[in-house]
Amino acid sequence: MNNTSLIGQSIRRVDAFEKVTGSAIFGADVRLPNMLHGAFHRSTLPHAKIVDIDVSKAQAVPGVKAVITGKQCSFRHGGMVQDEPFIAIDKVRYAGEAVAGILACDYETAREAAELIKVEYEPLPYVDDVLKALETDAPLIHEGMAGYPHSTTLIEKTNIAHFNRVCRGDVETGFAAADLIEENWFAMPMIQHATTEAHTAIAKYDPSGKLCVWTPAQSPFNVRAELARSLGKSLNQVRIINTRVGGAFGSKHEMAAEPWAVALAAYANCRPVKVVMTRQEVFVNSVVRGATKIWMKTGVKKDGRIVAQQMKTYFDTGAYCGWAPAIARNSSYAAAGPYVVPNVDIETYCVYTNKPHRGAYRGFGFAEVAWGHETQMDIVAHKLGIDPLQMRLLNCLEDGKVSITGETMFSVGLKDSLEAAAKAIGWGSKSDTNSGKGIACFSKMTGTPSSSSSVIKLNEDGTVTIFQSLVDMGQGSETIHTQIVAEELGIPIDAIQIADVDTEYTPYERSTTSSRGTFHTGNAVRNAAIDIRNQLLQAVQKKWQIAVERIEATDGEISEIGGEKRSVAIADLWGKGFLKHPIIGRGVFSTNDIYRPVDPQTGQSKRPTAFWMWGAQAAEVEVDPETGRIEITKIVSANDAGRVINLLTANQQLEGGVVMGVGSVFEELVLKDGLAVNANLHDYKVPTSMDVPQEVVPILIERTHCEGPYGAKGIGEGALAPTAPAIANAVYDATGVRIKELPLSMENVFNSIRKEESSKRHSR
Amino acid sequence: MNNTSLIGQSIRRVDAFEKVTGSAIFGADVRLPNMLHGAFHRSTLPHAKIVDIDVSKAQAVPGVKAVITGKQCSFRHGGMVQDEPFIAIDKVRYAGEAVAGILACDYETAREAAELIKVEYEPLPYVDDVLKALETDAPLIHEGMAGYPHSTTLIEKTNIAHFNRVCRGDVETGFAAADLIEENWFAMPMIQHATTEAHTAIAKYDPSGKLCVWTPAQSPFNVRAELARSLGKSLNQVRIINTRVGGAFGSKHEMAAEPWAVALAAYANCRPVKVVMTRQEVFVNSVVRGATKIWMKTGVKKDGRIVAQQMKTYFDTGAYCGWAPAIARNSSYAAAGPYVVPNVDIETYCVYTNKPHRGAYRGFGFAEVAWGHETQMDIVAHKLGIDPLQMRLLNCLEDGKVSITGETMFSVGLKDSLEAAAKAIGWGSKSDTNSGKGIACFSKMTGTPSSSSSVIKLNEDGTVTIFQSLVDMGQGSETIHTQIVAEELGIPIDAIQIADVDTEYTPYERSTTSSRGTFHTGNAVRNAAIDIRNQLLQAVQKKWQIAVERIEATDGEISEIGGEKRSVAIADLWGKGFLKHPIIGRGVFSTNDIYRPVDPQTGQSKRPTAFWMWGAQAAEVEVDPETGRIEITKIVSANDAGRVINLLTANQQLEGGVVMGVGSVFEELVLKDGLAVNANLHDYKVPTSMDVPQEVVPILIERTHCEGPYGAKGIGEGALAPTAPAIANAVYDATGVRIKELPLSMENVFNSIRKEESSKRHSR
Repeated sequence: MNNTSLIGQSIRRVDAFEKVTGSAIFGADVRLPNMLHGAFHRSTLPHAKIVDIDVSKAQAVPGVKAVITGKQCSFRHGGMVQDEPFIAIDKVRYAGEAVAGILACDYETAREAAELIKVEYEPLPYVDDVLKALETDAPLIHEGMAGYPHSTTLIEKTNIAHFNRVCRGDVETGFAAADLIEENWFAMPMIQHATTEAHTAIAKYDPSGKLCVWTPAQSPFNVRAELARSLGKSLNQVRIINTRVGGAFGSKHEMAAEPWAVALAAYANCRPVKVVMTRQEVFVNSVVRGATKIWMKTGVKKDGRIVAQQMKTYFDTGAYCGWAPAIARNSSYAAAGPYVVPNVDIETYCVYTNKPHRGAYRGFGFAEVAWGHETQMDIVAHKLGIDPLQMRLLNCLEDGKVSITGETMFSVGLKDSLEAAAKAIGWGSKSDTNSGKGIACFSKMTGTPSSSSSVIKLNEDGTVTIFQSLVDMGQGSETIHTQIVAEELGIPIDAIQIADVDTEYTPYERSTTSSRGTFHTGNAVRNAAIDIRNQLLQAVQKKWQIAVERIEATDGEISEIGGEKRSVAIADLWGKGFLKHPIIGRGVFSTNDIYRPVDPQTGQSKRPTAFWMWGAQAAEVEVDPETGRIEITKIVSANDAGRVINLLTANQQLEGGVVMGVGSVFEELVLKDGLAVNANLHDYKVPTSMDVPQEVVPILIERTHCEGPYGAKGIGEGALAPTAPAIANAVYDATGVRIKELPLSMENVFNSIRKEESSKRHSR
Repeated sequence: MNNTSLIGQSIRRVDAFEKVTGSAIFGADVRLPNMLHGAFHRSTLPHAKIVDIDVSKAQAVPGVKAVITGKQCSFRHGGMVQDEPFIAIDKVRYAGEAVAGILACDYETAREAAELIKVEYEPLPYVDDVLKALETDAPLIHEGMAGYPHSTTLIEKTNIAHFNRVCRGDVETGFAAADLIEENWFAMPMIQHATTEAHTAIAKYDPSGKLCVWTPAQSPFNVRAELARSLGKSLNQVRIINTRVGGAFGSKHEMAAEPWAVALAAYANCRPVKVVMTRQEVFVNSVVRGATKIWMKTGVKKDGRIVAQQMKTYFDTGAYCGWAPAIARNSSYAAAGPYVVPNVDIETYCVYTNKPHRGAYRGFGFAEVAWGHETQMDIVAHKLGIDPLQMRLLNCLEDGKVSITGETMFSVGLKDSLEAAAKAIGWGSKSDTNSGKGIACFSKMTGTPSSSSSVIKLNEDGTVTIFQSLVDMGQGSETIHTQIVAEELGIPIDAIQIADVDTEYTPYERSTTSSRGTFHTGNAVRNAAIDIRNQLLQAVQKKWQIAVERIEATDGEISEIGGEKRSVAIADLWGKGFLKHPIIGRGVFSTNDIYRPVDPQTGQSKRPTAFWMWGAQAAEVEVDPETGRIEITKIVSANDAGRVINLLTANQQLEGGVVMGVGSVFEELVLKDGLAVNANLHDYKVPTSMDVPQEVVPILIERTHCEGPYGAKGIGEGALAPTAPAIANAVYDATGVRIKELPLSMENVFNSIRKEESSKRHSR
């Protein structure tokens, strides 16, 4: 171990150089010999039977190699329900769904031919609202749903893809004891990740039938498993070569361009086929954060103590499921907020509609429920005349308190986060007219159980190469892992290299999701490094004939502690004969043993997650009552990192989360007649440097976790979740107007202010 | 373990499909985006000072990006002596040496520009004979030789790149006790491997300075180490991606096209640079089996027992060393043949000349010394009137006998090989006029000490991927390793995949040389598979709560032996929760511990090699005395495999060795004024289907080796070594003409017969 620990220091990203010089290879950069290109003809109707597809004109375009429809490609895929055809079969379920694919010599030709496809449809009634989709006469989106291989609690002959319940205590008893009962609906629109890099895949079969796919996947082992399952192949017949990822945020966890490229590759005579989604396709055909509606009924005592929470949450999954059932289910375990709630009853629905399909989006459902519970908390506090901060501190989970799933909590940095955020925003000091402050907090679990693995190779010259399959998509995981290995082996950062992720070569990793990287893969990499260190120490102690406890790895050397104070450079171990054979380190980390299965009826579990994320956000805004324009002057994001590994990148995670959170407050992917009308970066407004808060203050709380590497937990998603309610609560503080439906567009705020003024006038 | 063992069965090559369908990627198949191409201007003189290089015309050719000479590239490389410049610096040392490299948009442009280079030389005296190069007034090829980093016993101010001696007993005492002393010179010309695939390399720097080279390398870790050392980089800053190898036989162990591609890549602004050698360059600029001269003085008793062997062997290494010092040194440990020799004195010289440089060639020097000792043995036998087979059986090494280095031998399958070969050729039966039979035998060590390593990944569906870095260049090692893993895990061949070799991703391997693969890498792969099996058995026994000894892996399942006879498919272990985390197997094998260093003064060692190869060859020929044409009617090759792993590929190794051995009997790379005159496949005659023996009979002897996997040793090189003396001895049997100098060209045989006839006439 180093005398001067690297843990907690600010280390420059190890991938900075290749990113800055432009030498990093992203999906669209992949160019292979004899490569063909694909483009897709997509439906214009949200729900319709396909009567006929006329491909003749497309096929006649010079350079077109093949036109593929659902007739030539009958595979389906899907993380939890295998509901989604690679190319629409028989009917389309959302506007924009792929109906025919063109395989051509270049992209322009493919695009031109795609426009020439003529599809005859028989329109079907469609549904674009999650509550309407639950009505008994709603059009059925998947008729033979139960026939799909699936791992959800889908309900046949309905649009319900998933349902689950979390209950504890008795809500009726709770409400009976309450001094105040507050009931509200909250809503959020469909938004999209808007990653810089479009979703891309290059697929190639070799003559033996082995499939290779180059893709900026977030979770390549998930893509490998899904493709193998869909195609009926063994896992070693599918290889995913990961390219660099230009932003993912959940949208590249499941497949998007991959099934398109694979469908075409089957007709490409073993030539590679490249598919780069257009921006419109990224918006509509990858995944979205679907619309969400939440009903909450809260019972509180006069002193602010929560006695009951009843909720129904409705997750719109769009036309297909993906991993949305897990989004709905997992968020239900914290849907009532990070509070002690003795009586709780939460029903969670994941529902099909004729819309683009829902996938993971930074926060995986927990940002959605936070919009509900943190706005509700504010409403209740104000009604009780209690300071919203005090209301949260009174109810919040702490070490030793019991969660709504029955877990006794530990390593809870929530109170510290709330207090730190409040202090930094100047909580309690008087705001100017039209300006206000808001606070919100959250908790989030990480996907559990799961496993990670790592192999480390010690080269003959003492440099090392790390193998692992967590994907660095900007979060800085490669830097974290390099730091961990440098720490354990006592060698410099630049002696360490991290190999590109490739399912054929790098070891199993469940996914790059759920803020799980540092905790899980960090542990696996650390274990592999310790395995290397142990082998080095043993090799040296064998030669020196002293106890292994008297040897340490530090400053690039293996040194004797005390005694003759001998030392040998790790770089020389091979040359000087200490090492007689190559050293390979191996590390695995699995949360299978600590996980306690969740009871499917009640949602109860003593340990549903490897760790919880905790954080609080405080926002300061100025609202122009004449226009409805919100200016965010400051946001403080305090998050419990467990233990900070890299100070630089940890702070950047919080800053990035805040900015993306600001986006989630103002963005909306708008459909008209089922068709997306602003699926481009002109009309869909992501925050620019003009829109982000004037001041963002990241605060890192460190409540070490006994199972995390050096005590670390995850902080990738946290800073986003409470951004929307913190801002909306600040808007209320500034204006007295309570907005329960996102986005906080100028129009929405303006109208809300007018409505509030009008109701005040009428109530006079 | 399987009930029905796979070991010894004939298993179809696992790479057969990709080879047959043409989907295998060889060096020249590599096409990368923005790739530039290189070609070289090469010297026309064998030894000359470079006075001036006029690159102006070349530089003016449209499409030429850069012209690089030794002035722009001052790196040197070399396995044992870093003597060879990437591009000639100041002087050229052999005709054909690269003087300037052209970097251009395509190959044709590069080639055209290369022709336009004008070099002004100051010719120097040159030497093209190994004995002349040792004369005191011989031109010095490397003036500042001792200044090169080196690991040989080079002798400054001479052309001696290496010298060593093996001595035991006292030859003078031996000769004094001898009844017959026979003294002869033997010679072999320069030959070349003539691999189907030309030597090729594609080199690319990334902006950080990391170098990636695609190459059909035989020993990619050797290439990595040499490049890193030459360029002053750490090992993880150099990556070698192995392409498929279209024949190597030693010629791709060290670098050939790689330094050329790397020299140009430095000026390519991070674009990849491809260099494919022309056939002429392959002949002259990769490596050759250099000319060799051997002087032997043998003392024998009347009964045929050898009492003394004195030898001087002269290995012509050409202008540069490569690994030739090791060729010379290693062969000296068996230069006196596989016999008990109580008194021995062998001096071995590796000598610079102005010729193409020597490298490994199937047999690594042992074929050369076999030409000496096996011809000498025949001469002596005939002079004593002893049957050549009996003479060999009388003297040959056996278990428990002591070698010339002082090793007590074990696992010696020589006598069995001699007897089997003799029986199959019909030894002792009368031959027709002009037809004759000959026999020869050999022993060969394997490079020791060395290490191999392997990692095996168990996929979630029970399929596995093997990582190792031995290169399958046709010998069938991937099939062997697959078989071993199938055997140890009890899973089918097609559940196993073997990853392509890539120094970044696959674990350390010393080299693919020396017939060492099955023994060394086979052991490493087997250890990794056993490691996987142990983890699987432990996972299952933990769940079943029975002793691990009562569980076995067989037929794709883990099964309980006796008891409840439970079983679970390996494919289901993950899904059914037996496995809670990914399984990674790790295996290393090193001969460091069994190796005993060779005494540098006397060549004595109790264990100089991990194993010895043993074999015998019997040939039957018909010689046309009117033309000198030799028709080989039958060759029997009996080799001690230790234990056969794959019967099919083991037999093919012997057959291939025989055919290449026939080539080594007739081929010669001819120089005129130092310049190769037949460096093409028209004039350099490799054996065609018309030239190979009418009948080749492979015989596999199995004398198991206690340290080999399942008892296996190596058989890659053996069948070649005794081919030449077996044929020459058969020619003697047919004609009474003794030829001591290869090749056995029609001209040589014709002249030898005429000379013999003439001397008989004169002696009448």
